[in-house]
Amino acid sequence: MLIKIERDHPTPVYQQIIGQIKKLIDQGSLEPGSRLPPSRSLAEKLGVNRSTIYLAYAELQALGYLQSRPGSYNIVLQRTREVAYDPDRQSLIRWEKACSEEAARIYKTFLGYTPEKSARPGSGPPPFDLASLGLDPGLYPVDDFRRCARHVLLNSGFEPLEYGSHKGYPPLCEYIAKRLRLHGISVSDQEILITNGAQQAIDLIARLLGGPGRKVAIETPSYANAIPLLRFNRLQVVGIPMKPDGLDLAALERALREERIAFVYTMPNFQNPTGITTSHQHREKLLSLCTRCKVPIVEDGFEEDMKYYGQVALPIKSIDEQNIVIYLGTFSKTLFPGLRTGWITGDKELIGRILAIKRFCDLTSNNLSQVIIHRFCTLGYYDKHLKKIHRLFRQRMLLVLKAMKNCFPPSVSWTRPMGGYTIWVRMPNKISSQRLTEITAQFGVGVSPGEFYFPQRFPSEYFRINIARVPQDKILEAVKRLGKALGQLAS
Amino acid sequence: MLIKIERDHPTPVYQQIIGQIKKLIDQGSLEPGSRLPPSRSLAEKLGVNRSTIYLAYAELQALGYLQSRPGSYNIVLQRTREVAYDPDRQSLIRWEKACSEEAARIYKTFLGYTPEKSARPGSGPPPFDLASLGLDPGLYPVDDFRRCARHVLLNSGFEPLEYGSHKGYPPLCEYIAKRLRLHGISVSDQEILITNGAQQAIDLIARLLGGPGRKVAIETPSYANAIPLLRFNRLQVVGIPMKPDGLDLAALERALREERIAFVYTMPNFQNPTGITTSHQHREKLLSLCTRCKVPIVEDGFEEDMKYYGQVALPIKSIDEQNIVIYLGTFSKTLFPGLRTGWITGDKELIGRILAIKRFCDLTSNNLSQVIIHRFCTLGYYDKHLKKIHRLFRQRMLLVLKAMKNCFPPSVSWTRPMGGYTIWVRMPNKISSQRLTEITAQFGVGVSPGEFYFPQRFPSEYFRINIARVPQDKILEAVKRLGKALGQLAS
Repeated sequence: MLIKIERDHPTPVYQQIIGQIKKLIDQGSLEPGSRLPPSRSLAEKLGVNRSTIYLAYAELQALGYLQSRPGSYNIVLQRTREVAYDPDRQSLIRWEKACSEEAARIYKTFLGYTPEKSARPGSGPPPFDLASLGLDPGLYPVDDFRRCARHVLLNSGFEPLEYGSHKGYPPLCEYIAKRLRLHGISVSDQEILITNGAQQAIDLIARLLGGPGRKVAIETPSYANAIPLLRFNRLQVVGIPMKPDGLDLAALERALREERIAFVYTMPNFQNPTGITTSHQHREKLLSLCTRCKVPIVEDGFEEDMKYYGQVALPIKSIDEQNIVIYLGTFSKTLFPGLRTGWITGDKELIGRILAIKRFCDLTSNNLSQVIIHRFCTLGYYDKHLKKIHRLFRQRMLLVLKAMKNCFPPSVSWTRPMGGYTIWVRMPNKISSQRLTEITAQFGVGVSPGEFYFPQRFPSEYFRINIARVPQDKILEAVKRLGKALGQLAS
Repeated sequence: MLIKIERDHPTPVYQQIIGQIKKLIDQGSLEPGSRLPPSRSLAEKLGVNRSTIYLAYAELQALGYLQSRPGSYNIVLQRTREVAYDPDRQSLIRWEKACSEEAARIYKTFLGYTPEKSARPGSGPPPFDLASLGLDPGLYPVDDFRRCARHVLLNSGFEPLEYGSHKGYPPLCEYIAKRLRLHGISVSDQEILITNGAQQAIDLIARLLGGPGRKVAIETPSYANAIPLLRFNRLQVVGIPMKPDGLDLAALERALREERIAFVYTMPNFQNPTGITTSHQHREKLLSLCTRCKVPIVEDGFEEDMKYYGQVALPIKSIDEQNIVIYLGTFSKTLFPGLRTGWITGDKELIGRILAIKRFCDLTSNNLSQVIIHRFCTLGYYDKHLKKIHRLFRQRMLLVLKAMKNCFPPSVSWTRPMGGYTIWVRMPNKISSQRLTEITAQFGVGVSPGEFYFPQRFPSEYFRINIARVPQDKILEAVKRLGKALGQLAS
């Protein structure tokens, strides 16, 4: 057995030995069943300490190269052979026929679904990304999070790596309940259910309330990712127009009278995509209408914590005397979306029924993330982080709105949000998402075409921009470039 | 403003100042709108450095106690008031009527569902837990994991905290594909979809293939958590008996001929709950039968990595020439279940269709966990950990089987698994899960009553034990105690 030690090499000696023996086995020079020299004699031969050989042999046993029975000879093991991958293999099953009607439909939607991928195919994301709805990751409080993660992993032992409670990590439920009480919502930890982001919250509610012949009333336009999901859960989507002050309540009233509506889905703050925030009066009217008709409201508070111009209005849930509002929230729009942590709250029995679904669908949400987020929040890092991004966006929103006025053609108009991230832009003419994407990409800008936000997809005169994704030093340049693109579209 | 500094106190001076000002504001001694003294004069008064006061004021601004406009006076802010919680509030909505048929049914199941909670109500878990299907968390490689987590959070910046790919973290998909190729499955990373544990994998497949009038053939008994989930997804459950060598293939053939079966759900290794492993021949026959009938097989490889007595047989997926097998796996049975990381693989088009559902249901799985697990695996920690638990359970399974022979009444029989964790025990008489739970709890032991593993719940002569949850030094005592409980049940 030929092994060469280089004492000056940065790789430790035992690792050099491991590497060379692995190679001899992988190449077949050392065949399965053959014996390695006893550690003593190999140590002598190589002029190294015997413990070095021990270490190398132990590691090779752990890796499955050597038989691991202690005390016996070191026998080379039969390595499992990796099979080849055959990319051309076809399936006997015709999946299109095998899958359900709803599954076939969502797949079709999925294939052409690119609301936030507004670059030309193959050209990579545009350098000025006003399309995707997220925070500039440069603003994530990564260091604070790391400190919390380190503390949790050092001090909580195996607990965070174990199955958690189906409902969610109890201390985090308590924290969220307290936070919601500060937003005026009367709730205890018993009525909090942690979900894999707000998206799973919408899914669970739709799974509970959907069914054959059932309908859901949504704002038009509404959150793009919700529309296919609601339909997938056997809910026919009834679009109610957004007016400048929120959902058209007269149209909603007609729909509630004429159709069998399972629930109303609404985003009262900084609505996605329009950025519209409703007044307290509008919320009262909406609630009183739904209470009269006994129709639940699903209130999506995805940016409740982005009220950086101060309190705009309390959540609908806060005035919900009859407990008809199902409220959902998330950390994904202010903190770390990759941790997939959202929540649902509402009537206790309702939460129990949603829990029954969640319990069988994926048992529990990620436990480790919940434990770390809990520490992060209760040490005050979340509030500190919110203060920071509030300060930033208070200025940025005004800056962007001013720049739009200066740079956009006069035929273009837009909403003036009272917080949050999104602005809804209206062009003088309808345009296909493809053309919009092409032209803006020429200027290095990505926007989110309006057509994805409506129940029926047609070329639209609208698009959404998100002011939070682009770093601070690029945001004005992004607006300027978008202005040029709009100029070209208008000409 | 009365502030007292104690210089000998372990709390830093600036934190003492923060604490006391917070208290004054919370108590109302400092009213909203009132001005705090300029930092210079407060510093002089307290005899501290001016930067100490700066630090304290900055923190109070971050916490929302003081107005945060820089340069101006430090004005006390109106604190948001927390509303009270009213536990007696009722809902106007009758949720039982509002929810779908499937949701009503799963809720009913959920309320009486306690397959692994075999203690008497209110008495806490029994000290000898043979009920829950998990690994003794004392065996988790927590230190290795912490090192990986630390490295990821120090070196990967914000990436792991961002939204990940809908399909899963690409390097982890590659790792899993390679691992599956070592198990004989011809697959690339393109056909791997990461899920929130294997439970979500089952859910996604059922959502794809379920629908009105559709049926699924399952082993009887089968994985308890799967039965309500399949039904929730509009799949009527057709039970096919387990024989000592696996699924009764003649009965399956009849069912495939007579009923419209959407897919067959099977666990060929260490089946849950029976512990039965099928032979290569049985796998070939099952595959050939389903290929002939063009019915997909869902192969649940939840304990593929628990073959501690060596290779038992390759996965059905490894001989699946026609690509009809959907294979699923998980880290939850060998590693950290709290990280909820499982996967699905199969035909490329099939994976695309499942991805479409996953993409709208919860966008993506937890990204951070995937990045850390990837590092953990590729550094060899996973293989090292497997070697360790293999060594342990190779001995433990034999030990437990021998102890059962010595301690159990002769009227009781059980399976002899070739790996994995679970043993299926048969008593001479049927018994209600409640009575079984009560008697075993008297001896401090928890077992999982058999009735939860059948499509119809009746008192059963079976129960499942898991040998992996109880620490090494308690396992023989657990078996002994269980023997005594069985003696009492038999008398």
